[in-house]
Amino acid sequence: MKKIVYMDNGASTQVDLNVAKTIKNYFLENYGNASSLHRFGQDAYKSLQNARKTIAEKLNAKPEEIIFTSGGTESDNLAIKGVADAKGKGHIITSKIEHPAVLNTCKELEKKGFTVTYLEVDEYGLVDLRKLEESIKKETILITIMHANNEIGTIQPIAEIGKIADKHNILFHTDAVQTFTKEPINVLKINVDMISLSAHKIHGPKGVGALYVRLGTPLVSQIQGGVQERRIRAGTENIPGILGFAEAAKLDNQITNIRRLSNKLTAELLKIPHTKLNGHPQKRLANNVNISFKFVEGEGILFSLDQKGIAVSTGSACSSHSLEPSHVLLAIGLKHEIAHGAIRFTLSKNTTEEEVDYVIYSVKEVIEKLRKMSPVQAE
Amino acid sequence: MKKIVYMDNGASTQVDLNVAKTIKNYFLENYGNASSLHRFGQDAYKSLQNARKTIAEKLNAKPEEIIFTSGGTESDNLAIKGVADAKGKGHIITSKIEHPAVLNTCKELEKKGFTVTYLEVDEYGLVDLRKLEESIKKETILITIMHANNEIGTIQPIAEIGKIADKHNILFHTDAVQTFTKEPINVLKINVDMISLSAHKIHGPKGVGALYVRLGTPLVSQIQGGVQERRIRAGTENIPGILGFAEAAKLDNQITNIRRLSNKLTAELLKIPHTKLNGHPQKRLANNVNISFKFVEGEGILFSLDQKGIAVSTGSACSSHSLEPSHVLLAIGLKHEIAHGAIRFTLSKNTTEEEVDYVIYSVKEVIEKLRKMSPVQAE
Repeated sequence: MKKIVYMDNGASTQVDLNVAKTIKNYFLENYGNASSLHRFGQDAYKSLQNARKTIAEKLNAKPEEIIFTSGGTESDNLAIKGVADAKGKGHIITSKIEHPAVLNTCKELEKKGFTVTYLEVDEYGLVDLRKLEESIKKETILITIMHANNEIGTIQPIAEIGKIADKHNILFHTDAVQTFTKEPINVLKINVDMISLSAHKIHGPKGVGALYVRLGTPLVSQIQGGVQERRIRAGTENIPGILGFAEAAKLDNQITNIRRLSNKLTAELLKIPHTKLNGHPQKRLANNVNISFKFVEGEGILFSLDQKGIAVSTGSACSSHSLEPSHVLLAIGLKHEIAHGAIRFTLSKNTTEEEVDYVIYSVKEVIEKLRKMSPVQAE
Repeated sequence: MKKIVYMDNGASTQVDLNVAKTIKNYFLENYGNASSLHRFGQDAYKSLQNARKTIAEKLNAKPEEIIFTSGGTESDNLAIKGVADAKGKGHIITSKIEHPAVLNTCKELEKKGFTVTYLEVDEYGLVDLRKLEESIKKETILITIMHANNEIGTIQPIAEIGKIADKHNILFHTDAVQTFTKEPINVLKINVDMISLSAHKIHGPKGVGALYVRLGTPLVSQIQGGVQERRIRAGTENIPGILGFAEAAKLDNQITNIRRLSNKLTAELLKIPHTKLNGHPQKRLANNVNISFKFVEGEGILFSLDQKGIAVSTGSACSSHSLEPSHVLLAIGLKHEIAHGAIRFTLSKNTTEEEVDYVIYSVKEVIEKLRKMSPVQAE
């Protein structure tokens, strides 16, 4: 029997069976519009408010600080453009390794007269806090730095960034799509004003996300219409999806086991000659293993592993149709040829030791074969 | 046994069982990110393109002219702001009875320097084509008039509006959320540049919609990020939801039967003294029955019917938490007290004759009881 090993959970995850059942129930039984006044509508509204409470509790936030959206990308857009529209003009600080949802939103705002500083990162992908503070101007309105990078897994010091933002009285947004329910985030302890979340990275449905918005944050709605979501996000609430998101947020992610498996995978793959772990060796997502294999093309590795039933990625899914090397790998200083040979393995609570062993065995075999065929040889 | 009769299908519909099964399959089996290069991703991408083809065929459009969104509200925002951003400035023509997603988007653009004409409608809710043409200025960039009104069901002459738009070389957008798969729309025969669609009004999932965009239409993306949806709408594609939308679009809506049941409901309810059908008597949605009951409050009727297990609405769901009478009913010239006594019954393919009979019986009983209690009496 052919093995199928899905190790691209950074791109998307299998929906949990209980989450799927919850959603199906809302499709077939509780299908009211949450704005309707009859029992179907009121049931939907109550369910919505319970889901809001569940998501809020995960961040130690108030329920009314959670605005449901269609996903992480919309949340990033809402946070950044929402503040930009509220302020009218100003300067934004971000980093060179943000998700395209942040980078391209910042580029869009530059067209409209806003100025943006794209901070360099070090070889591990960490933002330099001193440089961050130095880049603050009197017209700075927002700092947007991701919690953990989606490609190399590096976790930024968001508590320290929050302190700097607070000291200078600047709003702070973080894209926590890769860390929500996997790394602790407590909005009572960290000075963060907005946090982007996504359901489909945590075994919830695609097309659902949220933005945490600290009460009092100036934010202009980006989708106008009905009065849903405190008038910050119009449109009939996706009740089944939102309930599925809340169910997913309650799941046990088995982080300890994932970390053990990731460590094993990393250690074994680094035994292959001419390899390099990308991202920070300790300050990284438990489920992310990103390794450069010199003298081979990442796409060749990806397709060879796919033949063996193993799903991995080169850069992030969002940029995988581009032939350019990953902007993240270039930002941490990798040369083009080494950036091109990077593979991202992202585990989940469903990943087994047997799968990890099969991946280790298969990668070793694939790399050996590809290197034999490669025109560029080691030594 | 207590009857449960859902007659608020204009607000949202029960997801079809086969649609729910399709979605569950994509949750649990085909859960790849459509941007990923491995087989999971490629399977997702192929499914996405098949769904795009299905939706396109329903409009006689090309697959690449379908942009998937999170719903009708986002589609309306994308169409109107997308053109506004592409043009930079100008004048927009709409009507006073549009959905809040159109009206509030237009109001937002007025803040940014655009000018908007909100056309009056006649007593049936129809736009006057002569007035429409008279309102065109040399700086007019867009006409946005809905296909059918969500509250009173009146169907606008979009073919004629399209001709006027074409004659003056102005872009034309229509919100067809209430008509898609229920009334024919052929983009090869009608000069329409953009059409908003929604899944949850046709037994598909909430949180999914689309915008038809005729090739060559100048449109600026409103959500920046990855390169999905021809760079017009970023964000991981909601594959399960989109596939569910496509399945829903294939369903037989049984319009003939719905129209027969609506006609029976209308005829019987109009036998109650001091009643009035709102909207056009013929040019209306097959599934929409909107009736004003004089001397009673709509909310009183709604809650009394809810006690009997019948779900109906007063205005649209989107404005039902507001105490103001419906902007649509005021626009067709109803006095406040008559607008307040309006009830919308919206049927679906699941509505049975037995349900219609139960609703007729119950409404008669409720109206009689409420009128006896009412301080304002007939004659």
